[in-house]
Amino acid sequence: MYALGIDLGGTNIKAALVHQRDGISELKSIPTQAKDGLEPTLERIAELINSFNLRDRETLAGVGIGAPGMISLDRKSVRNPPNLPGWTEVHLAAEIQSRIGLPAILENDANLMALGSARFGAGFGQEHFIMITLGTGVGGGIIYNNRIFRGASGAAGELGHITIDYAGATCNSTVTGAIEGYLGQRFLSQRAAEVIRKHPENALFETFSKDWPKLEPMHLTEAAEIGNELAIEILKDAGEKLGYALVNYIHTLDITTIIVSGGVSKAGKWILKPAEKVALEQLMPPFRPRFNIITEQLGNEAALLGAAALAFENL
Amino acid sequence: MYALGIDLGGTNIKAALVHQRDGISELKSIPTQAKDGLEPTLERIAELINSFNLRDRETLAGVGIGAPGMISLDRKSVRNPPNLPGWTEVHLAAEIQSRIGLPAILENDANLMALGSARFGAGFGQEHFIMITLGTGVGGGIIYNNRIFRGASGAAGELGHITIDYAGATCNSTVTGAIEGYLGQRFLSQRAAEVIRKHPENALFETFSKDWPKLEPMHLTEAAEIGNELAIEILKDAGEKLGYALVNYIHTLDITTIIVSGGVSKAGKWILKPAEKVALEQLMPPFRPRFNIITEQLGNEAALLGAAALAFENL
Repeated sequence: MYALGIDLGGTNIKAALVHQRDGISELKSIPTQAKDGLEPTLERIAELINSFNLRDRETLAGVGIGAPGMISLDRKSVRNPPNLPGWTEVHLAAEIQSRIGLPAILENDANLMALGSARFGAGFGQEHFIMITLGTGVGGGIIYNNRIFRGASGAAGELGHITIDYAGATCNSTVTGAIEGYLGQRFLSQRAAEVIRKHPENALFETFSKDWPKLEPMHLTEAAEIGNELAIEILKDAGEKLGYALVNYIHTLDITTIIVSGGVSKAGKWILKPAEKVALEQLMPPFRPRFNIITEQLGNEAALLGAAALAFENL
Repeated sequence: MYALGIDLGGTNIKAALVHQRDGISELKSIPTQAKDGLEPTLERIAELINSFNLRDRETLAGVGIGAPGMISLDRKSVRNPPNLPGWTEVHLAAEIQSRIGLPAILENDANLMALGSARFGAGFGQEHFIMITLGTGVGGGIIYNNRIFRGASGAAGELGHITIDYAGATCNSTVTGAIEGYLGQRFLSQRAAEVIRKHPENALFETFSKDWPKLEPMHLTEAAEIGNELAIEILKDAGEKLGYALVNYIHTLDITTIIVSGGVSKAGKWILKPAEKVALEQLMPPFRPRFNIITEQLGNEAALLGAAALAFENL
C-alpha cells in the first residue's frame, strides 16, 4: 500500500510517494510561490500530485498533508497558516479531492514529524514520546498510546511556547521567556552573537564580527567540536534551558522519552548532555530512571513520512 | 448502584458511601494513626469500611481509594506515599480484598479530585479540563475525553512541579521556580510574611508580627475583602504566577477549561482574575476564546466522590 505525503511550506511544496513498510520511493519538490495567493498554490499542489505515476490507484490510500497553522479537529481544513498569504480558512481536503479525485487529510506539520518518527524513525516501537523540533522555531508533537495526542481542538503540543522564565523576553512568541526564545535558530544565534561580541579574542569573533547575522548554530557546533570553550558554553546554556522545558513537559504528561529533531539538534551532545543533566536533577525521582533523550536522524523526511502515515491510518 | 470512596491521608482516613447518581449518602472519618505503621493502618481501613451497613452488597460496585504517592499503572498498588511511614510498596487493592471481600482500585488523590469534579461537580459535562488543587501543595489532575489522563505510568498531572522561573527557589519541589513554591499554602504565606514585614503600617503587620507562622492565605483574602491594598497586591502576584503556569499547561495539552479547587482557591477572584489576565495576554490567539477558569465548590468531598466514581467505572 502506498500514500502520498505532502509537506506544504511557505517556500517549497514537497511530496513523497511512500510505501507503508519501505518508506519513501519517490520525492519531489517545487517552489510554493505563495505570494501568488491561494488558487495558484492549490493548482500547484494538484500538479505536483499529478506528476507522480499513480496509475495503480487502488493501492493508494490517499493524500496526507502537513501544513503550518491551525488544523480543524476533523483534519479537513486549515486556518491562517503563517507564510501563506490569502489563506484565511481553506477546506484543503475538499480542494484536493475535487482537483485530483483522491481523499486527503491534514495535520499540523510538527505533529507529523512525530508521527513519521513513530512509524519510520527513532520513535518506532515507542508507545509514548515527546518530539521537540529545534528549527527556525521550536515545534512539538506528542505521541501517546501510539497516536498523535491532539488535545481538545487538535492544537496540543505547542511545546516551543512554554515559559521557563516569566520575566524573560517575548521573542517571537506570545509567551515571555518561552523556550523558543532560547533554542529557536534565530534567537540562539542572536544570544550567541551577544556573548561573542564581548570576547574579541575568540575565533568566532574574528569570523563573524563584520557580519553577525551570518552566525548560525552550526558554526557554534563546529567551533565546539574543535574545543572552542565559548561555543561550548553557549550551547551548554541553551541545552540547560531545554532541560527545564523538558521537565515541564514530563511532569505534565508523564511521557519520559524525548526525541529531538530539526537543524539545531545537529548540535547533538553539546546541547543534549546539558539538557539531560538539568532534567535528571530537576525531575521528581520516579521519572528519572525512565528519562531517555534520543536524536531523530530522519530530518525533514519525517514530516513527509508522517503525512503518508496519516493517510494510511485515517483514510 | 453504590460504591465506597476512601480518602487515605496521613492524618485522617475518610470514607463515603456514594450513590452513582445522588452522590454521598453517608460519610465517616477516623484518625489514620500512621505512626503505628502499615498493618494497623490496613486494619483501621478495613474496620472503617465494615462500619458501613453494606448488607445489600449486590448493589455495591466496590471500593475506590485515593492515596498519596505513586500508584501502579494497574491501579492496584501504591509506592512510598508521603506521611505514611513503613509503606514502601503496598498491594493495597489485594489487602482490602482479602480483608473485606470487596474488589478495590486505587488512584492518585489529585486525579480523583478531578474525576469527582467531572462526575459530580464543576467539571460535569466538560469533556476535557485541567484541575489544579491549591492546598498545602499544588496538585493537578487532567481529564481528557472524559477520563483521567494518566500518561505512560499513571503519574501525569504533576502540575505543581512546573517551573515558571528556572532561576527561582526550590521550595518543596525538585524543580527550581516550581509553581507550588508560589501558590502552595505554606509558601504563599511565607512570601506574604516577607512582604508584610516591610510594611509595619499595615493592619496585617499588627496582627501577625508577633507570630508570622499564624499567617495563612485566608487572612490575606479577608484583608483583601475589606480593601487592604497590600493583601490585594500579594494575592495578585500569586495569581499572575498561576497564570504563567496555566499557559504552560494549555500550550502543552490544548485543554482550555481550568477548574481550581483546594483551600487557597477560596481567595477566589483575588487570585483568579490576575491569573486570567496573564493567561489571556500570553496564550496564543487560537486558545484565547476557549479559555475558561472555574472554581470547584465540592471541597474535599471531590476526592471521595472521585474514588467512588473510579470504582463504578473500573470494577
